Amino acid sequence: MNDTPATMMAAMGARARDASRTLARCPTAAKQRAIACAAESLRGAGPAILAANAQDMADAAAAGLSPAMLDRLRLDPARVAAMADGVAAVSTLPDPVGAVIDETRRPNGLALARVRVPIGVIGIIFESRPGVTADAAALCVGSGNAVILRGGSEARASNAAIHTAFVEGLETGGLPRDAVQLVATTDRAAVGAMLAAEGLIDLIVPRGGKGLVARVQAEARVPVLAHLDGINHVYVDASADFDMACAVVVDAKMRRTGICGAMETLLIDSNFGRVGGLVSALADAGCQIRCDPADQRLMPWNDLSDGVDFGVEYLDAIASVGLVEGIDGAIAHIAAHGSHHTDAIVAEDAAVAERFLAEVDSAIVLWNASTQFADGGEFGLGAEIGIATGRLHARGPVALEGLTTYKWVGRGAGQVRG
Amino acid sequence: MNDTPATMMAAMGARARDASRTLARCPTAAKQRAIACAAESLRGAGPAILAANAQDMADAAAAGLSPAMLDRLRLDPARVAAMADGVAAVSTLPDPVGAVIDETRRPNGLALARVRVPIGVIGIIFESRPGVTADAAALCVGSGNAVILRGGSEARASNAAIHTAFVEGLETGGLPRDAVQLVATTDRAAVGAMLAAEGLIDLIVPRGGKGLVARVQAEARVPVLAHLDGINHVYVDASADFDMACAVVVDAKMRRTGICGAMETLLIDSNFGRVGGLVSALADAGCQIRCDPADQRLMPWNDLSDGVDFGVEYLDAIASVGLVEGIDGAIAHIAAHGSHHTDAIVAEDAAVAERFLAEVDSAIVLWNASTQFADGGEFGLGAEIGIATGRLHARGPVALEGLTTYKWVGRGAGQVRG
Repeated sequence: MNDTPATMMAAMGARARDASRTLARCPTAAKQRAIACAAESLRGAGPAILAANAQDMADAAAAGLSPAMLDRLRLDPARVAAMADGVAAVSTLPDPVGAVIDETRRPNGLALARVRVPIGVIGIIFESRPGVTADAAALCVGSGNAVILRGGSEARASNAAIHTAFVEGLETGGLPRDAVQLVATTDRAAVGAMLAAEGLIDLIVPRGGKGLVARVQAEARVPVLAHLDGINHVYVDASADFDMACAVVVDAKMRRTGICGAMETLLIDSNFGRVGGLVSALADAGCQIRCDPADQRLMPWNDLSDGVDFGVEYLDAIASVGLVEGIDGAIAHIAAHGSHHTDAIVAEDAAVAERFLAEVDSAIVLWNASTQFADGGEFGLGAEIGIATGRLHARGPVALEGLTTYKWVGRGAGQVRG
Repeated sequence: MNDTPATMMAAMGARARDASRTLARCPTAAKQRAIACAAESLRGAGPAILAANAQDMADAAAAGLSPAMLDRLRLDPARVAAMADGVAAVSTLPDPVGAVIDETRRPNGLALARVRVPIGVIGIIFESRPGVTADAAALCVGSGNAVILRGGSEARASNAAIHTAFVEGLETGGLPRDAVQLVATTDRAAVGAMLAAEGLIDLIVPRGGKGLVARVQAEARVPVLAHLDGINHVYVDASADFDMACAVVVDAKMRRTGICGAMETLLIDSNFGRVGGLVSALADAGCQIRCDPADQRLMPWNDLSDGVDFGVEYLDAIASVGLVEGIDGAIAHIAAHGSHHTDAIVAEDAAVAERFLAEVDSAIVLWNASTQFADGGEFGLGAEIGIATGRLHARGPVALEGLTTYKWVGRGAGQVRG
């Protein structure tokens, strides 16, 4: 092909726009049937997908990828089945498209409604885990959008096999194959072309490490839904129940340390009665403690002699720990160091907790619950395309509704403004 | 001052962020009282505002501004009173902040709600009309946001006088002056600093001509709510009532030709029985007709021998007119040439009209009503900060709700994910 990335993207974008128009007027049952067919097709294509994945794994091993990356890349029959199950689950979710957000009749008789419609064409840029291909495609189609997918070069064969199976299923179910397109080239310039595709792609969702998200946020001319950091705090108020505080803090940090909802910083009210016991509980669970060496009450557990950086997302069994002066100190600390993702308070004092919920400016704020609940599935959304920490359009876990917008629909009887 | 525009903006942004935190937790009654005080202060400052405006008018006349621009710049006692009335009206609008969008209780007992919160810091970049200062400030404060305003250099003294009166009123009402800041310099680089102010300004709303909006859309690193074009269509279906079609078409084009909701293109179903009568009605109302010279049925009214460009926003008493093959032709024409602003159908056939409403991809779609209703006041929103044709966050007229976002608030009893 002699196409430049920009001309390739223009052609894919035009096909996606056409497909998006078909999808936008597609009844719920037809979308759900096509997604169910895609799930079935993925199940049937298991051997082909595994063969393609074996090829990617061999290339990746030869290229010296890390064991962690190899594990993210690897598929096995159970993972393929889980991928198909995930797609099938999307086919049963309520359809946000067509929902009436609100309606009114104006004094002149004009009936006005705001009606949910798909966004149009979504671009997904992802790394490593080939399962994202199916998962993201199902969510986009389920919300009536066409999607252009761009996976990592290391998963090239796996992504192609999954994509082929998915669109064959869609076609069986009566939807156009162009509803889900995969960028075939692994040329990095193709990512640049997606990020510059104003008018072709309406929204970009990056799924991957911080390097990818940072590049997308820095370069994109198309709106982006994403989070860069999850520097999440648990604040333990003086009024907190000790056992609850230990349980929430240990779960928030240690259940899974590598997810974006993990706690990175523990803030303890300096008037909390059992500071040492709480820090011990976290340390005993296997967490390294980093604190300001001036904090004499925390020093016995401190694992780093030269201080603490409260702006770090460890994604590991390490926590920054600091003492603060009550709720005001906690709110000020989070405003200075947080990343607007997920922050929690443990407190028995409802007035203090309500101040935290109202004044901490994060996508998700929790009272007496672990930050590890920051997940579309846990929030009852059935799935998620990602978690957004921006302030526009959608915040927190983004699922089908977050992939829609609305239009104003007015029905009149010849009204003129006159 | 030796400040660069970037350091000036950093300082203003920090003060705005502080003020936004105060505003975000401000009860409805306190915001409404402060806005009412601002309205009162504007009334009292009438002489000072008019004196400042006289200075701007003298400078502008000396600089040779066009009569249209001079008219937009000019204030008189009635216009100042209308400005104060507009601000007072915002003080009576329902407060979107704190509204619960939806709520649920998860099987584990966690109570989750999505709660409306202010966006944070809004940047408004505007031209000519000094009234925007008061209007935009009231809408931002009313929705709990801090605002940084940047007006045109020609209205420098007027804007400063209005701003001073407004913030004195706010302060009387108990809100911080930094809730509404005006960029003092008229250096064009200050606009660039606002557009680059990621993390300081959360949303930019440009209010002015196409040149301003295009610059903002091209350069902004901050999300923008705006519309560039309003290439609005009225499609008259074969099933349309002739008298209603004439009334809607003439109003849509001629009521006010210079507003973004004005019709620019009239599409007529080639099976409509009275094509000539309809075009005559529009021409008789004083509208120039431009059509494809090959359209023999339209040629008798054609005012331009060398054809028609369906991509033009005239903002004048001129209309592009074309014949299309029914609803499919109309939908395809609008998809090819429209600007996703406001499009209307005149039809008696409900099935045809519902297809138009569903398939035309515009922020506002209307059946049997004039496109000139595209206005927040006409939609019952009480006011508008502007009309947005993007696909994310808010579409169509944007008022108080469009200046808010939401957070997820979870209340638990010690739930851990385990």
